[in-house]
Amino acid sequence: MKGLFITIEGPDGAGKTSVIEELYPRLQATAAKQIVKTREPGGIPIAEKIRHVILDPINDQMDDRTEALLYAAARRQHLVEKIWPALDAGKIVLCDRFVDSSLAYQGAGRGIGMDEVLKINEFATEGTIPDITLYLDVDSDTGLQRIMKNRTNQIDRLDSEGLQFHQRVRHAYLKLAEANADRIVKIDARKRLDEVVEDCFYELLTCFPEYFQSREV
Amino acid sequence: MKGLFITIEGPDGAGKTSVIEELYPRLQATAAKQIVKTREPGGIPIAEKIRHVILDPINDQMDDRTEALLYAAARRQHLVEKIWPALDAGKIVLCDRFVDSSLAYQGAGRGIGMDEVLKINEFATEGTIPDITLYLDVDSDTGLQRIMKNRTNQIDRLDSEGLQFHQRVRHAYLKLAEANADRIVKIDARKRLDEVVEDCFYELLTCFPEYFQSREV
Repeated sequence: MKGLFITIEGPDGAGKTSVIEELYPRLQATAAKQIVKTREPGGIPIAEKIRHVILDPINDQMDDRTEALLYAAARRQHLVEKIWPALDAGKIVLCDRFVDSSLAYQGAGRGIGMDEVLKINEFATEGTIPDITLYLDVDSDTGLQRIMKNRTNQIDRLDSEGLQFHQRVRHAYLKLAEANADRIVKIDARKRLDEVVEDCFYELLTCFPEYFQSREV
Repeated sequence: MKGLFITIEGPDGAGKTSVIEELYPRLQATAAKQIVKTREPGGIPIAEKIRHVILDPINDQMDDRTEALLYAAARRQHLVEKIWPALDAGKIVLCDRFVDSSLAYQGAGRGIGMDEVLKINEFATEGTIPDITLYLDVDSDTGLQRIMKNRTNQIDRLDSEGLQFHQRVRHAYLKLAEANADRIVKIDARKRLDEVVEDCFYELLTCFPEYFQSREV
């Protein structure tokens, strides 16, 4: 793989989407290579169909392990059709959520166990690990308050979870960050949006100067 | 688990469907308990949707590992909603294909590796193993000749495979039967249908007399 694989992670309410929206154009302006911004299912028809099965509120009988296998399947197809070709072409991939999300949400949140969920994801990814993961950390009270504020009328199945679930997810992320300190950079996401974006931007430029010119720093 | 879990396996053209069609009423007539005849996706809505994604010929971009994960997901849901409740109620479950099919077809046939495919299936089944597996063995020439004879105009994606694929699948089944001689009974499926059915019937009555009365033997 010649490209650079960046993932953004965090519990609900960490502000991931907003951060990526502001971070992406700034990276584009400084990057030496093309940046592919993506998230599962990433417009891949097979992965879209799988996600549709997962998120359809009608499927309220879905077992937690079925769900974890479906996420791994969608991830696999997204990797094969989008991420690997981009990395092979030397591009920078900026991906909203990856394996860490499954470990935190299905492994810890749903209680399957992080090691168990890691196994099926190793099968799916065949050892592809991000070069860097920006983990947007937010405490559960702040996170849930932000979710409530942004909530639209349409609630999908994954949103209908409570404080304890959120806390398990965050705790798992903190454990992952500690265990993978060489890859995962913890960013304080309680700060103002522009500050969080700045912190993310700074990390990427510092860690991968060869991919980003420094004139904007 | 109080019930009895029987699976029927075999490569394409082994005559599985015909055998089950004749075996099932004979078992019903002798069984001490209710028999649930099933196969994935088994009328489970979530599993049906997953199978639809797998078998849709439009999805010709599907990666082999994506497919294996989807089979494991459909299997999991079928287990949770249909097989486990039946076994818990002490019933006999007669299931057309189970984990061995994935090991043979995805693991060996598609070349992912049987150990790799076993891992995700262990995640899906949490250790549920059939009490007995009737493996209908047929050589690839005979198997493929039977398929060609029965072929309808509608060919799904999995049918469009050749002799080498069939041989890899059969070889994998033979290896599994050897490695799991305590569970897998090899039945010669080149024989006439009524003889194959008789052999299957005899095995079940001999191995599990407590589930089947012997008056029909």
